[in-house]
Amino acid sequence: MTAGIPETVDPFGRLHERNGVEFAVADLELAEYGRTEIRLAEHEMPGLMQLRREYAEARPLHGARIAGSLHMTVQTAVLIETLVSLGAQVRWVSCNIFSTQDEAAAAVVVGPHGTPAQPRGVAVFAWKGETLPEYWWCTEQLFTFTDDEGNTVGPNMILDDGGDATLLVHKGAECEAAGVVPTVAEDDHTVSAEYRVVLDALRRSLAADPRRWTRIAEGIRGVTEETTTGVNRLYQLADQGTLLFPAINVNDSVTKSKFDNKYGIRHSLIDGLNRATDVLIGGKVAVVCGFGDVGKGSAEALAGQGARVIVTEVDPICALQALLEGFQVARLEDVIGKADIVITTTGNKDIVTTRHMAAMKHQAILGNVGHFDNEIDMAGLARYPGIHRITIKPQVDEWVFPDGHSIIVLSEGRLMNLGNATGHPSFVMSTSFSNQVIAQIELFTKYEEYNRDVYRLPKILDEKVARIHVQALGGELTELTKDQAEYIDVDVEGPYKPEHYRY
Amino acid sequence: MTAGIPETVDPFGRLHERNGVEFAVADLELAEYGRTEIRLAEHEMPGLMQLRREYAEARPLHGARIAGSLHMTVQTAVLIETLVSLGAQVRWVSCNIFSTQDEAAAAVVVGPHGTPAQPRGVAVFAWKGETLPEYWWCTEQLFTFTDDEGNTVGPNMILDDGGDATLLVHKGAECEAAGVVPTVAEDDHTVSAEYRVVLDALRRSLAADPRRWTRIAEGIRGVTEETTTGVNRLYQLADQGTLLFPAINVNDSVTKSKFDNKYGIRHSLIDGLNRATDVLIGGKVAVVCGFGDVGKGSAEALAGQGARVIVTEVDPICALQALLEGFQVARLEDVIGKADIVITTTGNKDIVTTRHMAAMKHQAILGNVGHFDNEIDMAGLARYPGIHRITIKPQVDEWVFPDGHSIIVLSEGRLMNLGNATGHPSFVMSTSFSNQVIAQIELFTKYEEYNRDVYRLPKILDEKVARIHVQALGGELTELTKDQAEYIDVDVEGPYKPEHYRY
Amino acid sequence: MTAGIPETVDPFGRLHERNGVEFAVADLELAEYGRTEIRLAEHEMPGLMQLRREYAEARPLHGARIAGSLHMTVQTAVLIETLVSLGAQVRWVSCNIFSTQDEAAAAVVVGPHGTPAQPRGVAVFAWKGETLPEYWWCTEQLFTFTDDEGNTVGPNMILDDGGDATLLVHKGAECEAAGVVPTVAEDDHTVSAEYRVVLDALRRSLAADPRRWTRIAEGIRGVTEETTTGVNRLYQLADQGTLLFPAINVNDSVTKSKFDNKYGIRHSLIDGLNRATDVLIGGKVAVVCGFGDVGKGSAEALAGQGARVIVTEVDPICALQALLEGFQVARLEDVIGKADIVITTTGNKDIVTTRHMAAMKHQAILGNVGHFDNEIDMAGLARYPGIHRITIKPQVDEWVFPDGHSIIVLSEGRLMNLGNATGHPSFVMSTSFSNQVIAQIELFTKYEEYNRDVYRLPKILDEKVARIHVQALGGELTELTKDQAEYIDVDVEGPYKPEHYRY
Amino acid sequence: MTAGIPETVDPFGRLHERNGVEFAVADLELAEYGRTEIRLAEHEMPGLMQLRREYAEARPLHGARIAGSLHMTVQTAVLIETLVSLGAQVRWVSCNIFSTQDEAAAAVVVGPHGTPAQPRGVAVFAWKGETLPEYWWCTEQLFTFTDDEGNTVGPNMILDDGGDATLLVHKGAECEAAGVVPTVAEDDHTVSAEYRVVLDALRRSLAADPRRWTRIAEGIRGVTEETTTGVNRLYQLADQGTLLFPAINVNDSVTKSKFDNKYGIRHSLIDGLNRATDVLIGGKVAVVCGFGDVGKGSAEALAGQGARVIVTEVDPICALQALLEGFQVARLEDVIGKADIVITTTGNKDIVTTRHMAAMKHQAILGNVGHFDNEIDMAGLARYPGIHRITIKPQVDEWVFPDGHSIIVLSEGRLMNLGNATGHPSFVMSTSFSNQVIAQIELFTKYEEYNRDVYRLPKILDEKVARIHVQALGGELTELTKDQAEYIDVDVEGPYKPEHYRY
Repeated sequence: MTAGIPETVDPFGRLHERNGVEFAVADLELAEYGRTEIRLAEHEMPGLMQLRREYAEARPLHGARIAGSLHMTVQTAVLIETLVSLGAQVRWVSCNIFSTQDEAAAAVVVGPHGTPAQPRGVAVFAWKGETLPEYWWCTEQLFTFTDDEGNTVGPNMILDDGGDATLLVHKGAECEAAGVVPTVAEDDHTVSAEYRVVLDALRRSLAADPRRWTRIAEGIRGVTEETTTGVNRLYQLADQGTLLFPAINVNDSVTKSKFDNKYGIRHSLIDGLNRATDVLIGGKVAVVCGFGDVGKGSAEALAGQGARVIVTEVDPICALQALLEGFQVARLEDVIGKADIVITTTGNKDIVTTRHMAAMKHQAILGNVGHFDNEIDMAGLARYPGIHRITIKPQVDEWVFPDGHSIIVLSEGRLMNLGNATGHPSFVMSTSFSNQVIAQIELFTKYEEYNRDVYRLPKILDEKVARIHVQALGGELTELTKDQAEYIDVDVEGPYKPEHYRY
Repeated sequence: MTAGIPETVDPFGRLHERNGVEFAVADLELAEYGRTEIRLAEHEMPGLMQLRREYAEARPLHGARIAGSLHMTVQTAVLIETLVSLGAQVRWVSCNIFSTQDEAAAAVVVGPHGTPAQPRGVAVFAWKGETLPEYWWCTEQLFTFTDDEGNTVGPNMILDDGGDATLLVHKGAECEAAGVVPTVAEDDHTVSAEYRVVLDALRRSLAADPRRWTRIAEGIRGVTEETTTGVNRLYQLADQGTLLFPAINVNDSVTKSKFDNKYGIRHSLIDGLNRATDVLIGGKVAVVCGFGDVGKGSAEALAGQGARVIVTEVDPICALQALLEGFQVARLEDVIGKADIVITTTGNKDIVTTRHMAAMKHQAILGNVGHFDNEIDMAGLARYPGIHRITIKPQVDEWVFPDGHSIIVLSEGRLMNLGNATGHPSFVMSTSFSNQVIAQIELFTKYEEYNRDVYRLPKILDEKVARIHVQALGGELTELTKDQAEYIDVDVEGPYKPEHYRY
Repeated sequence: MTAGIPETVDPFGRLHERNGVEFAVADLELAEYGRTEIRLAEHEMPGLMQLRREYAEARPLHGARIAGSLHMTVQTAVLIETLVSLGAQVRWVSCNIFSTQDEAAAAVVVGPHGTPAQPRGVAVFAWKGETLPEYWWCTEQLFTFTDDEGNTVGPNMILDDGGDATLLVHKGAECEAAGVVPTVAEDDHTVSAEYRVVLDALRRSLAADPRRWTRIAEGIRGVTEETTTGVNRLYQLADQGTLLFPAINVNDSVTKSKFDNKYGIRHSLIDGLNRATDVLIGGKVAVVCGFGDVGKGSAEALAGQGARVIVTEVDPICALQALLEGFQVARLEDVIGKADIVITTTGNKDIVTTRHMAAMKHQAILGNVGHFDNEIDMAGLARYPGIHRITIKPQVDEWVFPDGHSIIVLSEGRLMNLGNATGHPSFVMSTSFSNQVIAQIELFTKYEEYNRDVYRLPKILDEKVARIHVQALGGELTELTKDQAEYIDVDVEGPYKPEHYRY
Repeated sequence: MTAGIPETVDPFGRLHERNGVEFAVADLELAEYGRTEIRLAEHEMPGLMQLRREYAEARPLHGARIAGSLHMTVQTAVLIETLVSLGAQVRWVSCNIFSTQDEAAAAVVVGPHGTPAQPRGVAVFAWKGETLPEYWWCTEQLFTFTDDEGNTVGPNMILDDGGDATLLVHKGAECEAAGVVPTVAEDDHTVSAEYRVVLDALRRSLAADPRRWTRIAEGIRGVTEETTTGVNRLYQLADQGTLLFPAINVNDSVTKSKFDNKYGIRHSLIDGLNRATDVLIGGKVAVVCGFGDVGKGSAEALAGQGARVIVTEVDPICALQALLEGFQVARLEDVIGKADIVITTTGNKDIVTTRHMAAMKHQAILGNVGHFDNEIDMAGLARYPGIHRITIKPQVDEWVFPDGHSIIVLSEGRLMNLGNATGHPSFVMSTSFSNQVIAQIELFTKYEEYNRDVYRLPKILDEKVARIHVQALGGELTELTKDQAEYIDVDVEGPYKPEHYRY
């Protein structure tokens, strides 16, 4: 079916077809329940609904072919249908093997009740609990749109979360330019299992079509990126001069990073812990690794439930914030032995090593809410001599050490708020996703004004997103008088703060 | 099988039999998963495990036949197995139609791995989602123990939560004394559907055996009661002089009411809301009806997640506490129109009426964590002209009013922390249940010292329960010097406070 | 002037006289400022103002001669004037050498503007910064009322805070019964300096009039006591059978202990720390010794300012509460070396010893908000070899240890919220003092119904006090329907809770 | 003595002289107490003490003549003595008429015990409670340094807070360029009383020396500015192209704006309220106008004391933050009638108008912690028909409206945390002032690298300041491995975040 895996039309047995469009989801029978959830979520996503109303006529995304890689949840379904209602064609995958809500995936391919099925060709390739080869196969499917003549064409926009879709294009083009995919020795532990899967896919691709990714890259007007992790990757590409198309950093819109990252995790961390373990949080010692926006939300959530929170930090400014909020700041090795709960939030790797894990208390809980699963050394844990794994329920494992004590690891070290719960709630995703939609419109319609660099959205749009959500919560904004606006040298309508303002 | 329903041996199709003991649960195949959960819960229930160790030899409950009516959860399974390890025979039901965890019910009848099945005859009659007739049929099964000769005998102890088991005995004996069960007109709306079911059961019982409940009552040494609601009923009986056996008020042990009620709900309210709705709590207006211990925990939980909490209260002392904690205190009718979430916690009835519900915002959420389901007028809602109910998923209903706006009602107005989540976490139940075990031992072994009245446990036992749990959380207690103890006129070992101390 | 110190009319140079009434205050010129503060405080004391209105005609304290020993602050001035407006004659002292607000003392003896000065003979003996001999001389002055014929008579009521007035009567009567005052060796370190002063006073009294205190005790209808400490003393006397008159335990009215003790200290602890030291509380490690009501308020206040709070506790129930609120519970000796702030709240003695103090960090702050000054071993500190004291400003001392490191001790170990600030704010004292007034009326008018025992006020009066203050804060109480009241078996008007309810 | 007021050497009777240096403070006898406070403050200002140690030899400010306009508190004294120890000559004024701590002013001109008096010529012109003419006279004294030959010379550096020193130079130079000072009609209410005072001063200056300010401006290497307000003025000048020398925006160092603004006010707002009014904050309705950093700290402080906080905001992003923290967001006119406490924090003008004030509750409290006193329309209040002002104590006024109700206004609408208390505590000022010192060194030594624009300090210096203060609070920082640093593309030593990171 694809260049990558030509020998089979349905390598993983999830493939369906409706009205000539193929997609791969777990179970189409969940679609009705998914539609109900989507309907309820729409009420909690006033930003997206407002954008649908606002652009109902203009349909500024008409002609856009968006390749989306972002957790295929109910909230994302509302995002997808917003993009479609603005004129876009969409193909979608989850950016995490555990984060798909199967009912949402089913619902979005079936489409709203009463509409002709998939009028815009929404194709989804995602199910909860993918293997790594499945994950990257799905990601490849993002790039095979069909044009009006029935030809296979690439996307002209990417909407990314963590940067995997962008990485595949860049890595593919890089290999094609080199004419070869790098080989990695079997016993080279410095290379992750996941990276090997990517290289395998590219190797097949290069064999089948030596200019596929180069061609795809040339057709892309730009990417809009959701997370800190993906944005870091983009800045690295831009700094090296190897970024292949313009990028908008959605993560650093205030209404994204200071809301989704902080208030989203405040909600969903607790939710994940509770669904996974049912363990009382109050009275427990909880260590939060990292005190960025995600760490701040995590610490607030745990403290709000009565845990004693200890923070680990590298950055002295964030550490000083933690101290002034009343949290102890310590090194993980000094407190690991008294922690009941350990949560990583850093975006960095090797935060919790096997040495740390071996020193944890019996039945202590370990989870990650940073983007990637390398914050906790899961590979090292699996290799720990004499270790024994008991799967209590999906995404909850007890790892028993040879000395008999065990720890509870959530979602195999991947995003536990998505793996063990349903991720961030709709309202907070509405602020994030409103920025995504605005950024997609901006890049799709004005891509010629942008260079191969990383941009942020103008503050006035950030304030627009906030304004919609303030209204939805019943907040009443004060209006500046003309006189007051002049006094502080802003427009009455905003933006109200200088670019460097930190909120 | 019972006097009440003689015409069939398995009226509800849930009956199983192992080693000659009958019980009724949803699915025995869940037993293995339930055993894993029980094992993990034991770690979080240090009080019960300590009591098992302490009384391993003495087995003070040898000879006890305990009729237990209390949410059949994983935590209750640890309680049941503690009672059994102390020598008791146990029959058990849930005190709420939605609160059974089917895996826990299955696990407890199967028993710990490697032990002979049900050596002590643990019989459970409970499954998630009972109908009212099923519920009361289960409750009747509590009273049919088998003695060593195979004769059916009544229990000699009751362990109650909300007082339904106690009510059945008292109501039964009352009807038997009167020789008749009262009749209720079909169209009498002042009588609940549930009460009709109880009267029906008693009518059948009276026909079959006119002295059954009188006999059962005579055999009971006492009851230990878990909740505010059940305790209120007991005090009413004692005041009227109609209490048939001594009672220990476990609810008012400090380590019960100030921990389970407050910190348990602080945990499980959030959990129930999240599992049911996935709606962001932060930024929302949440009304908490009642500011007793449960209300205090609810308000703290919601505020800890960033909601704006408004409290309604009848008692001016509790209202003043709410104000001084920074909450607005208002009447429900004055704020119902701006509430996103409404939670009842009062133990009283008719707190949220149909008039209130009709005035709620579109898709506002309504749930109850008070003991009974009459806090919210669910019967009135179902009779509301033109109302339309959409079941989104089990225990989550959208009720659509004729004007098109809808509200989300959780667990049909019953305990949503149990119906939509798994109830209070193990650790906090360990404090409650340790008091239950101690109270059972006390009444069973010393019942002759007690009158037909309601008693509380001595403070030194309360402190003992607390001490175990402080240690489990890593807290280090300070010890009084002899000199200090004399100065404040207490023993070095405690108790440390006068009876009226409020904590 | 008194039996105790006959040789001089003004031993301490503070004596004034107006309209034939003698009193002793620091500076009468402060009266005008004090009157303004009293006027403002009246607005914040709705309970007392309501009682004035309610009893304006009945004047139920007509004939009462009240000996009051309670911090002579602005709030107490409003209390005194309330007692006077209800008909009482009043003599007053502070129950703490540092707690007098001199402007309040001056204002209350001058009386409200436009009224004839001291129509009811309000005599105050109090100034900020008394020595111990001055303090006990003042306390003796409480007992020399003048009747209509100009004869010196004793009080018929005591209003006490901490029990010093009650102690003097009891100790005096005890010595008179024995015919001798015990002697104490000069070098006996087990006896406090203060107790020696008391014995000296009694020795003079016994010499002058061997039945003075016996006579005074006989004339007293009862005492109403404000604090935990004083109440403990009363229960000890009652248990020993040596209590000489009935007592009402005002401290354990809910609207006292759960408000004044907790919310009062939440306010005034911070205030005292700030005025004394100006040191940032945020980010600091604060140890709170004791987690009773005062400890709870202290911990909340410090946490609310961003400190990391560690709690020390003897009572496992309170310790478990502290843990579940997210505080570390530790022994003082284990954490003293990292504490920046240490606050004692226990009501016990020898909580912070010289060994602890020597181990504190350089410039760490030490203060006490428990009633008596023996929580911190100030006597031991003063005797510490090589110690050096630098008075930074009144009530703030730097104690420099021989190794060069120093600690900051507030108010010489006495109540720092009063010594370094102005004590609890008016509103919270209004709840306490309303109970005091109600208790005075109760005992004065119905003393014949009471035995020589310790009583609490009925709950309905507690609720009355709360109701007034809820209204003042704009809270709107819900009213029970008759049906609801019956359902929970209370009166519509209250009381709403059983006696043992803990709030 | 100055060009501005040539006719008298001591127009305000505060002038002193020591060792040939003139200065003006309230009372030199306070110097000893001030020295003690400075000694204690040094312990709480680890950043400044570290800089003293670090630059003890290099003395990079040798030759600097710094004109400092910043609240003359104890903390500022430690800053001044740090600047001096680094080699600078200093002249200083308060930037607020109420914010001087007289003992600090006295102590700093006397100098540390045992040093030769004022070896570097520290001259201070500041006392608590200046009039506006006094204030601007003091500010003029900043510009009359004496060089080694005894000639009067201008400063070569400005250290500013709010921008008044900078404004005087710019306005002076502007008038000199125009050759005339604008005249303002007597009855023109659009011009503040304060601006008239400035114009008067410039009029005298122009008459005496028509190129004075032009000359001074030419000699200045740069200004470092402390506050949002001053920074806004600088950006306006830079945008207009009229900024006369480079500026460093210290306010927007993270360790300034996110610490001093937020955590400083969290501490000192409460302190000011308490010292001014002694009114219970718990249970009260407090309106905070503005939810920037200062508003955030204010809201947290009030909520931490149990107030119900309502926020007013113009900026929808900040408003959404307030909502998600659980605060009501409303317009002032809609809630003014139920507020007990109103605090302005905006940096804008006319936030609380006379219309608002007239609608406030009886004895409600009104204060400002934004930089300037025009947030509250004090001029309008004074002109309100029939208004009556009662000064309760210094900086606390009761304004009685004709209808008899009154409001309490703190510090005449100026910074009440400084006017009614002692401003931000030392520790938090240590973070701010460390940035100031670093900025002064930067501009003084490298001014040639800077244009007439506004700059921020590099992040690595921000992190350095934070690191010192983390250590002082006992926080233990985690160190990145080289591998981790590479993974997130930063140096092991920092800086750790991109410029746009918001903390």
